[in-house]
Amino acid sequence: MAIRTLVFDAYGTLYDVHSVRSLCTELCGDRGDLITQLWRMKQLEYTWLRGLMRSYEDFWRVTRASLEFSLDSVGITPEAAICDRLMDKYLDLDLYPEGREALAALKDYKLAILSNGSPSMLHTLVRASGIESSLAAVISVDLAKTYKPDPECYALVERVLGVRKEEVLFVSSNGFDVAGAKRFGFQVAWIARHRRTDRPVNSNVGPAELYTLLRGGAEKLRYDADFCIRALTDLPSLLTPRST
Amino acid sequence: MAIRTLVFDAYGTLYDVHSVRSLCTELCGDRGDLITQLWRMKQLEYTWLRGLMRSYEDFWRVTRASLEFSLDSVGITPEAAICDRLMDKYLDLDLYPEGREALAALKDYKLAILSNGSPSMLHTLVRASGIESSLAAVISVDLAKTYKPDPECYALVERVLGVRKEEVLFVSSNGFDVAGAKRFGFQVAWIARHRRTDRPVNSNVGPAELYTLLRGGAEKLRYDADFCIRALTDLPSLLTPRST
Repeated sequence: MAIRTLVFDAYGTLYDVHSVRSLCTELCGDRGDLITQLWRMKQLEYTWLRGLMRSYEDFWRVTRASLEFSLDSVGITPEAAICDRLMDKYLDLDLYPEGREALAALKDYKLAILSNGSPSMLHTLVRASGIESSLAAVISVDLAKTYKPDPECYALVERVLGVRKEEVLFVSSNGFDVAGAKRFGFQVAWIARHRRTDRPVNSNVGPAELYTLLRGGAEKLRYDADFCIRALTDLPSLLTPRST
Repeated sequence: MAIRTLVFDAYGTLYDVHSVRSLCTELCGDRGDLITQLWRMKQLEYTWLRGLMRSYEDFWRVTRASLEFSLDSVGITPEAAICDRLMDKYLDLDLYPEGREALAALKDYKLAILSNGSPSMLHTLVRASGIESSLAAVISVDLAKTYKPDPECYALVERVLGVRKEEVLFVSSNGFDVAGAKRFGFQVAWIARHRRTDRPVNSNVGPAELYTLLRGGAEKLRYDADFCIRALTDLPSLLTPRST
């Protein structure tokens, strides 16, 4: 069936979660890069665990808890003065450079976000980056009180937008999100933002490289993407002309 | 209520999952340590994702898929010759040195394992380590077709052993497992096997240290252990004398 709707993941796909790195380094010195990686790893981990435990707390609280865990783990007391500034940065992440152009080129399609973010986080983020008017909806998993890749999250797209899953192309850089969306029944484009380099690695890799090794490849979960792209601006070429 | 039953996690609690490290190094050289850490991280990740996606595959398949992912990610083709040997090692992990003595000291209690492992993996592991006769049951989450910390896994303990959750002390080294068991309603002892050192860290940490930072501390999930111990042999001192 022809694609009529594109649904984007937010964190890591439209917005660069690693844009907290420079502030982490400013506030935490030579532990900044380590904290950046631990924070993101723990944040995802907590969403999966809270989903699986059936003990939902919204993404703002999960993001704060994972930040406090990360600071604590490297020996920095998670005081409000540090945490508040880093959390604020999460409301003002950088839109990936090609994001605006890609959304503009897709204006004949229904466009939406489906994200783990809480409604208020997403509202602030989308407004700060000026892409509000391109989107038919910004859907938070908060409506389902669980996290991706729980099928109940992806089902929100049908419920909120009134579209059928067969006509949706879901776009994500996150391997687990690709698998969850495919399992649910969307067509899926994986944007390989953290693609691994071909250079040889050994056990002396640092935190950022370990993150890339852990997240950079296609997941072996038997739900593979239909398309693999390098930038959001590759999307129009995947789509057959829309019959109106 | 007085404790009458102790239920142990297997991987990481009774058995040392890092005992694959020397074989990883023998087979993969200077990437051995990296593979050891990636494999364990990915293995856990896949259990959480498959649980949350409602797409269960047993732990043998998950362990194999995560091994293949890890080899692939560091540039080693996941050929059967390597994978088979490493998977075999997973059937013969080392029992932690104090395990046997601890189980013997607890012989007046009902003792069991609740593990993510598949029934056949657990059967082989328990038999190879010679602790079969100490255990009233070896319970695999395979009965529930999901993974810890899903509450349905912990509910198997009541179902299989015919005990009430209030009289169970659950023992795990895994922070997510502690949280899940506590959320379910067990009393919980956390064995801090990967406790972080107090020495200062910076962003130059390697894979093993990153693993410890990520898993060594108590999780900030608001379900904390009742007890924290350093070795399984600390357990008897936690228990009030049992009325028989």
